[in-house]
Amino acid sequence: MKIAIQGEPGSFHAVAAKRLYGEDIELICCDSFKQVFKLLANEEADEAVVAIENSLYGSINDVYDLLLSNDTWIHGEVYELINLFLFGTQESSTGSITDVYSHPAALGEAEDYLDKTLPDARRHEHSDTAAAAEMVASADDQTKAAIASRHAGEELGLKVLAEHIETHEHNYTRFIALSREQKSANSANKTSIIFRTVDKPGALYNALGVFAKYEINLSKLESRPIIGEAWQYMYYIDFKAGTGEQRTIKALEELAQYASNIRILGSYKAGQTVEA
Amino acid sequence: MKIAIQGEPGSFHAVAAKRLYGEDIELICCDSFKQVFKLLANEEADEAVVAIENSLYGSINDVYDLLLSNDTWIHGEVYELINLFLFGTQESSTGSITDVYSHPAALGEAEDYLDKTLPDARRHEHSDTAAAAEMVASADDQTKAAIASRHAGEELGLKVLAEHIETHEHNYTRFIALSREQKSANSANKTSIIFRTVDKPGALYNALGVFAKYEINLSKLESRPIIGEAWQYMYYIDFKAGTGEQRTIKALEELAQYASNIRILGSYKAGQTVEA
Repeated sequence: MKIAIQGEPGSFHAVAAKRLYGEDIELICCDSFKQVFKLLANEEADEAVVAIENSLYGSINDVYDLLLSNDTWIHGEVYELINLFLFGTQESSTGSITDVYSHPAALGEAEDYLDKTLPDARRHEHSDTAAAAEMVASADDQTKAAIASRHAGEELGLKVLAEHIETHEHNYTRFIALSREQKSANSANKTSIIFRTVDKPGALYNALGVFAKYEINLSKLESRPIIGEAWQYMYYIDFKAGTGEQRTIKALEELAQYASNIRILGSYKAGQTVEA
Repeated sequence: MKIAIQGEPGSFHAVAAKRLYGEDIELICCDSFKQVFKLLANEEADEAVVAIENSLYGSINDVYDLLLSNDTWIHGEVYELINLFLFGTQESSTGSITDVYSHPAALGEAEDYLDKTLPDARRHEHSDTAAAAEMVASADDQTKAAIASRHAGEELGLKVLAEHIETHEHNYTRFIALSREQKSANSANKTSIIFRTVDKPGALYNALGVFAKYEINLSKLESRPIIGEAWQYMYYIDFKAGTGEQRTIKALEELAQYASNIRILGSYKAGQTVEA
């Protein structure tokens, strides 16, 4: 099975894809989320895995916008604990490092460590943690280090210069599995939808009211601007019920009174945040 | 008056600061939003201007997070129409350009133009549109071009290679004026608050209900994760009433039943989106 991801083998995306689909997959590594959605649409990939939010940084807006503009179906989710390691070449030590490479979010998460241990090292942004590790491995230069997952650095034979350099312990990224066609799952207990509120006072309040009425808990509410209509928003909601449940069917029926352009993005089994 | 902004003279931030405070200000140009908040806190700047959302790209999450972690007061807002121009040196033409520099959002907004007119030009990300223009001016190399505001390029004596290369017409950025101390304004008709919902089903629904009850329209709702508590959110709300109004006082009083950590970020006169 061909699974499109953003990032390299060894990236957090690759790890998430293997947890969602097992080891026996062919990863198609893309430079951008846009390319991931494109390969899924034109059938160069069978399915895709994308990060959608992080517990520290919030939603990944590009992915929310791509979900709106593409016809995909979310059929699974998984949470990855983000552990960060500092890797150098075998000859390196923290004393030899002058340049550190990683994804901007990983550099941010390791800022406290870097400020204390490597205050003079220049910090360089890369599109992906695993790509940064690969660059350090291929440069084979003891002044360069990468911040990446344990997995990414070890696969490349890099040396661990420091473990767990992340500032926050409970740093999870949520990844979703995407297919082109709708997949029904009996075990689905979580659903993602998008809608637009009608232009009336209290419309969002009334829209949320249908979920309260049927005792469906919301786990996420996100607003995104509507392109071409300044200061009008679409709302993305995740709620804790599957589309097969009677209460979901009733709530979505009543939602149509207060919302327009309702679209079900997917229904799936809620993932667990298990500490690694 | 010393006003801290993110970006250079000639940036959209600089233009917004002059609309908010007049021409007679001293701009303190910062590399990051974090630095802007720092200079405001330690009194190196009297006040500050930061972008908070864009009508195409949505909220600027870093700024939302900095509003939460800093003790500032929003006392004004202004909307800037984002027009993008392609600038080169006086000897350049679109045919001579091999490299284009700008802010990632501006490169994104000019993507359609670049794909059509300069498909082979390499695109380079800069922290600021005006900084990209300055770089092109100082490099004085006819192969380099920058995407920036008309104002930024013209101030530097660059040549306009193309006008209005943005994809979307109604592209506005909303800028806010920040002070350290609370400022009361009789003309305030818009208020920004943050709160956290109590951990009960329907809590957000009930929180929004107090605004519906007093017929206060919401203009924005944004959720941001709470650091250190995975999948718990703070809600940012903008509503169309000033803190001096009776209905606002009552709504905020009742909000305390459904929300905790309520903080008023500011109350100010709503800005207008006027086409330039």
